[in-house]
Amino acid sequence: MGFIVAIAGATGAVGVEMIQVLERRQFPVDELRLLASPRSAGTTLTYNGQEIEVTVLDENSFDGCDLALFSAGSSISKKYLEACRKAGCLMVDNSSAFRMDADTPLVVPEVNPEAAKQHNGVIANPNCTTIIMLTALAPLHREVPIKRVVAATYQAASGAGHAAMVELEEGTRAYLDGKEFTPEVLPYPYAFNLFAHNSPMEENGYCEEEMKMVNETAKIMNDTTIGVHATCVRVPVLRTHAEALNVEFTDELSVERAYELLKNAPGIEVLEDRDANRWPMPLDAAGKDPVYVGRIRKDPSQKNTLDLWVLGDQLLKGAALNAVQCAEAALL
Amino acid sequence: MGFIVAIAGATGAVGVEMIQVLERRQFPVDELRLLASPRSAGTTLTYNGQEIEVTVLDENSFDGCDLALFSAGSSISKKYLEACRKAGCLMVDNSSAFRMDADTPLVVPEVNPEAAKQHNGVIANPNCTTIIMLTALAPLHREVPIKRVVAATYQAASGAGHAAMVELEEGTRAYLDGKEFTPEVLPYPYAFNLFAHNSPMEENGYCEEEMKMVNETAKIMNDTTIGVHATCVRVPVLRTHAEALNVEFTDELSVERAYELLKNAPGIEVLEDRDANRWPMPLDAAGKDPVYVGRIRKDPSQKNTLDLWVLGDQLLKGAALNAVQCAEAALL
Repeated sequence: MGFIVAIAGATGAVGVEMIQVLERRQFPVDELRLLASPRSAGTTLTYNGQEIEVTVLDENSFDGCDLALFSAGSSISKKYLEACRKAGCLMVDNSSAFRMDADTPLVVPEVNPEAAKQHNGVIANPNCTTIIMLTALAPLHREVPIKRVVAATYQAASGAGHAAMVELEEGTRAYLDGKEFTPEVLPYPYAFNLFAHNSPMEENGYCEEEMKMVNETAKIMNDTTIGVHATCVRVPVLRTHAEALNVEFTDELSVERAYELLKNAPGIEVLEDRDANRWPMPLDAAGKDPVYVGRIRKDPSQKNTLDLWVLGDQLLKGAALNAVQCAEAALL
Repeated sequence: MGFIVAIAGATGAVGVEMIQVLERRQFPVDELRLLASPRSAGTTLTYNGQEIEVTVLDENSFDGCDLALFSAGSSISKKYLEACRKAGCLMVDNSSAFRMDADTPLVVPEVNPEAAKQHNGVIANPNCTTIIMLTALAPLHREVPIKRVVAATYQAASGAGHAAMVELEEGTRAYLDGKEFTPEVLPYPYAFNLFAHNSPMEENGYCEEEMKMVNETAKIMNDTTIGVHATCVRVPVLRTHAEALNVEFTDELSVERAYELLKNAPGIEVLEDRDANRWPMPLDAAGKDPVYVGRIRKDPSQKNTLDLWVLGDQLLKGAALNAVQCAEAALL
């Protein structure tokens, strides 16, 4: 008694991970449809040892489907929502298309799993930096409400897709070889460089990625009183997002209690060797499911303030894994 | 009427920059002595088109000298301070050996140049991240006192010396070639990775680099009321340190006024194209003198708070340039 599942954008960086996450979590799949643009159709991908041909995404792709995982950009998600609804197929959408719609739940299953049940045909997968941040902060917020977070991010190439990961590697090799290299995916040279997150600027001086962290936090935590400030930076790392989080609580929360809460929280792994100044690194998290937390410090410069170092695989917990977890929360 | 100048640690990453800074700023040098350990002695370096042989640093190296720029580690600075004093030679020391000594001025010439005159034979060059941060913050603090800074850093390999820069490049090439690589200079693999600043941990959970930002800020700004919280992270960048600074002031300071102050401040260049989401990047600053500032934003999550993106060449303003500027402030 499984489901007919479709993945729209199956050949992208996130799509490929979705296939593997379904397999690894033994999601009950009776049939898996891999969908992509005509450019990518015809290739085959492996699921549970079975070769599946990628077919062209169209209006009929969802007939008979129970679940469609979308990771093909906002415009594609918008284009096919009605087709999914007509087919009675739940869309779990990794784009930002519906995230802030009032009737669309925005879900991090460790934080607000109950919201997944109240969908109107689509569940939105939050922004990757937001998922990673809130997986770590929610257990603390439940104990002592958070007043304000100052976040500085160290974001990987994968957030801009597979082509950005390739560009980082190729641009870096060219740099080492002393060769010219013109970036085409990202706006600036990436080799041994970093730059503000390449999303459109808003009026207030924040970029879209930063405002996602502000707005999505309020919606997921169902709390508009939490202040969030974010500086989002792309660093030359392949697939792990790291975040330095300075968190002011409304009352005291001890470092010891924070560790205890996080060690017992779902989806989190505390990884550190304090005396050795060894904390989670992108290489630890790449290809792994948990959100890694370490370096919880009492910040003496402000009352009721702790500082955390948090990271997670952008393609997994930041995207594919969270999407499959949303489907589990809604359907299983 | 010039000076006899010595550079201790002349063959190191900072030492080599010191030679070039002296030349570029036309510091009045009558004689330049390049000093290093026996291992590096015998090589020649060029100053003003003149080949100078590197000689072994010893007790007699400073006889007749007016100025010695030290960048050879704390123990070497401590070992030769008395020799410098006896010779009547001013030491400008890039190590942390004397920074917090009550009778040693700790100087960023754009911030507290007057302190350079009150030396007792040695002027301490501050920590690189602190220099870069305070060059940008001092003009704002003079207008409206700062209450608290939350800093997250993106620090380059150069802070760990030339060997770390080479290790970053070699480790990255090995990664791209799929070859094994064991880091020997830095504690962790650096290719497409990042990790907490590799300085010893203190009791409070902060590493030494972070506590330098706290303690040196109080001394340089001559103000113990400024709260500083820092998270220091090494990113795979060669020689520019970047810093995300969230700054709470004691009263309102507008974004416009902050830009005006920084555009007119010494040692600073405002570099940005707001609409294009284009801010200073490590590649902009590498090999350049100024501290680059951009992305000044009003932080709506807290009263009287601005956010800045600041970066500077770690070897220049973070070390060699600031040291030569200290000598200028004291001697010229």
